[in-house]
Amino acid sequence: MLSDIEIARNAKLVDIRKIAAELGLQEDDVKLYGKYIAKIDHRLLKKLSERPNGKLILVTAITPTPAGEGKTTTSIGLSMALNKIGKRSIVTLREPSLGPVFGVKGGAAGGGYSQVLPMEDINLHFTGDIHAVTAAHNLIAAMIDAHVNHGNELKIDIRKIFWKRAIDMNDRALRQIVIGLGGSANGYPREDGFIITAASELMAVLCLASDLGDLKRRIGEIVIAQSEEKGLVRVRDLKAEGAATVLLKDAINPNLVQTIENTPALVHGGPFANIAHGTNSLIATKLALKLADYVVTEAGFAADLGAQKFLDFVAPTGGLFVDLAVVVASIRALKYHGGVNKDELGKENIEAVVRGMENLKVHVENLEKYGVPVVVALNKFATDTEAEIEAVIENCPVTCVVNEAYSKGSEGAIELAKTVIDTIQRQPSNYKPLVDQNLSVEEKIELIAKEIYRAGRVVYTDTARSKLSMIKKYGFGNYPVIIAKTQNSISDDPKKINAPRGYEFTVRDFLISAGAGFVVALAGEIMLLPGLPKIPAAVNIDIDESGEIIGLF
Amino acid sequence: MLSDIEIARNAKLVDIRKIAAELGLQEDDVKLYGKYIAKIDHRLLKKLSERPNGKLILVTAITPTPAGEGKTTTSIGLSMALNKIGKRSIVTLREPSLGPVFGVKGGAAGGGYSQVLPMEDINLHFTGDIHAVTAAHNLIAAMIDAHVNHGNELKIDIRKIFWKRAIDMNDRALRQIVIGLGGSANGYPREDGFIITAASELMAVLCLASDLGDLKRRIGEIVIAQSEEKGLVRVRDLKAEGAATVLLKDAINPNLVQTIENTPALVHGGPFANIAHGTNSLIATKLALKLADYVVTEAGFAADLGAQKFLDFVAPTGGLFVDLAVVVASIRALKYHGGVNKDELGKENIEAVVRGMENLKVHVENLEKYGVPVVVALNKFATDTEAEIEAVIENCPVTCVVNEAYSKGSEGAIELAKTVIDTIQRQPSNYKPLVDQNLSVEEKIELIAKEIYRAGRVVYTDTARSKLSMIKKYGFGNYPVIIAKTQNSISDDPKKINAPRGYEFTVRDFLISAGAGFVVALAGEIMLLPGLPKIPAAVNIDIDESGEIIGLF
Repeated sequence: MLSDIEIARNAKLVDIRKIAAELGLQEDDVKLYGKYIAKIDHRLLKKLSERPNGKLILVTAITPTPAGEGKTTTSIGLSMALNKIGKRSIVTLREPSLGPVFGVKGGAAGGGYSQVLPMEDINLHFTGDIHAVTAAHNLIAAMIDAHVNHGNELKIDIRKIFWKRAIDMNDRALRQIVIGLGGSANGYPREDGFIITAASELMAVLCLASDLGDLKRRIGEIVIAQSEEKGLVRVRDLKAEGAATVLLKDAINPNLVQTIENTPALVHGGPFANIAHGTNSLIATKLALKLADYVVTEAGFAADLGAQKFLDFVAPTGGLFVDLAVVVASIRALKYHGGVNKDELGKENIEAVVRGMENLKVHVENLEKYGVPVVVALNKFATDTEAEIEAVIENCPVTCVVNEAYSKGSEGAIELAKTVIDTIQRQPSNYKPLVDQNLSVEEKIELIAKEIYRAGRVVYTDTARSKLSMIKKYGFGNYPVIIAKTQNSISDDPKKINAPRGYEFTVRDFLISAGAGFVVALAGEIMLLPGLPKIPAAVNIDIDESGEIIGLF
Repeated sequence: MLSDIEIARNAKLVDIRKIAAELGLQEDDVKLYGKYIAKIDHRLLKKLSERPNGKLILVTAITPTPAGEGKTTTSIGLSMALNKIGKRSIVTLREPSLGPVFGVKGGAAGGGYSQVLPMEDINLHFTGDIHAVTAAHNLIAAMIDAHVNHGNELKIDIRKIFWKRAIDMNDRALRQIVIGLGGSANGYPREDGFIITAASELMAVLCLASDLGDLKRRIGEIVIAQSEEKGLVRVRDLKAEGAATVLLKDAINPNLVQTIENTPALVHGGPFANIAHGTNSLIATKLALKLADYVVTEAGFAADLGAQKFLDFVAPTGGLFVDLAVVVASIRALKYHGGVNKDELGKENIEAVVRGMENLKVHVENLEKYGVPVVVALNKFATDTEAEIEAVIENCPVTCVVNEAYSKGSEGAIELAKTVIDTIQRQPSNYKPLVDQNLSVEEKIELIAKEIYRAGRVVYTDTARSKLSMIKKYGFGNYPVIIAKTQNSISDDPKKINAPRGYEFTVRDFLISAGAGFVVALAGEIMLLPGLPKIPAAVNIDIDESGEIIGLF
């Protein structure tokens, strides 16, 4: 099989104006970024508010393993297949971060014959949204230190500045730093650090805001520090929200691109699925629902992270109704959960597959607690045997369809598309969030930890207890909760693969994301700035004189 | 008079495709960024190589003062006026940095009725070129620390890493920092710092490269550190030049916009005029020379900095011939050089004006040493009196024309345009660089310091002497020299206004910019990362729900 970039290069792209026109967009609704990328004015959403919404399909996955599952290729393939069988469908995805592109993971615009294009641009600067978030983030940071330096009227306690700096790069050396050295001309020395832009609260805010006014209001709310008198200092106290919003004036508009089969895709926003909510912008999804009969959207990491956050927080925030969830699994990943060593995933092992299905079952059960019908998409890999596939289908608690979109494009996902439509018709969704937003922060954590993560009990470190009092004191005691924990386990321990249960779930700290509108409960160490490996992907990325890129995948 | 952004908003922009078509560009030569901005494929230059060049007019200025001179408005106004009188003219300018936009200076896309538009976009993210340079710069930085962390095969001496990190923001707290703290997972602690992206060698390289291949070769040459064995470590030793070039694949293409009178402008690249060469990309200027009869290009700071670098280094590098230089002056600035206090610049003071003309005369004399004809453009301000203007015209060693492009657009610069054309015809340029590139680094510095800066003698600090030996040892002993010194004086002392001479010029350090192809001689403290003032411009920048921006100027 050809490499992703070779497949991408062989694809025949159509003018993005044609894609836009087919969606019924007017020339004034779109701003072109070359021939194949356009931004759609977010204000179109208001104009279309009277239109009924299409059906919303949430694509999620089993717990990630080194074996790979293929969630993005499934989302893209499913949407292409829906179009293929005559339905109007849009896939909505997050924007890739530059960090992983040059680190280990490579690109994040799908793969094989299920890609969004032009993959080189989507994986690089795209329309500059992530750079805009970085700039706005660092403007606020610079204004904090400038404020402290020029008299510190707000009495910001420089030991308690929560707002770090941001960079869209894997760069471990910037995780923990000391700034302001070199004498008084450079301000006050203090501890600081960088986070990757995807982890910035501004990214979460951008993906939750309904329009420019809401964006500015949310940015103003962001808590950046504590004052010496223990008051909270917010972005609006620095009068920085206007300038930050100006920097995001284009970033708020969803990006329209096309799949490899020339069907529409919105790729917009990219918040983390642990420290933030982990799905593309609400504006993009809401807009897609006005423009298509079926919208396929992807949530980050496994169903315990991205999907739980989508169902309990994102969808209620945006007033979205979820019609169906697709859980992506692969034989290799199930085997890994079943205890097979990474090097032996290519060998047939039916028992391990069946054992590993405990993980899949937990995620399916969890999703059913939200009242949404569930379909499992089994991504076919070359090493899968017929017997293994049989075993999955037989043991699967819900309909399981083999998906070959990676190697075959829409043709490989037609059965999945038909099953999805059929399930939506036969089994209308009773979607309802699991978490009652009136519960206290602790009650919410208790509920999610036990019902979704299958913990036996929840414990709090001393730090977490004291932060919790602070959170209550400042009026966030009943706020929505986003739990940041490892993506490699249903539990808070990355080593507990498959289906752990009854364990002790430890909350070690809290963060306040007042602009995004949630508090973050940290369970375990969350890496907010990845590092580069010994041989970063960047070493193999190159370009020739004609502009042809190699090594991007 | 209306504010810049009000004037900009009242302007009637034409579709950039129309501007492109009028220049004879094909649809495939341009990539649209919305309706009013396009990138021109840099490979067009090769296609047009047989065409004769237009005339090149270099706009420079007297030594900057707090009073303002208006160099950019003169460049834009002159080009508009040339078009107005029937000549095809393009103005080429540098891209504004975000730092000053949110700091003190406001925007940098001209002003009044001499602007390039859309000013909001040009002053914000524009086509993302500066963000691309930041990303490529920081990728190299991250790869250095990752290399050291993962075994340090190149034996990089972490005390001698010359490659800092970059940010496009005024943020003094990042000038001097310690990174890699927090234990072994975060690498090795070491001293580091950020520079503003305009000061990155990558920005210089981008603006000097002839094509993607040359760009990659130059990036590979960049010296990033010394090894423990005292060898030089370059970007190519990290195998980072391919990925960095990939990040710059769009940034290399010049940006086409329009002036407020719908004439073409290329705004591309933005290197500093002290630590680097200080003019927009060579590709943009070379392309403009193929597409227009008259190209007006602007050099950074005064004639001793930007113009000297252009005439001795940039033009020879790009094979450009300079037909004429315009020196911009204002009565207020001349008065300041003549010793008048900032608060009293509004009062008539002919003697001070005449005294301050010593500064103007030095710059005119300097430019004549290069064999180029010189015209002085006197930018009219509301407080100027007839008698003062008379005094300037009378005492000016070359033709001096009053310019009112700021308040009147092209109408205010028609006399200037006619004088420029007339001078080029009557007095053909004998342009020749002053500095013979075969001279040694010291001989070059001696020549520039004495002939241009009017120093009596040149002295070197011990650090500079020892760096100079290193430079010779590594084979850079006859390299071109870029002198980084204060922009506020012809000398190396910012307090010496007007026309200092016979003083001692001190070189305190050297940097090697092997990718850009020069060594930098540092004379005085050069600020590579500005800070924000007590009330940054950002505080007054805002946006309403409809996307209308205020406070940007």
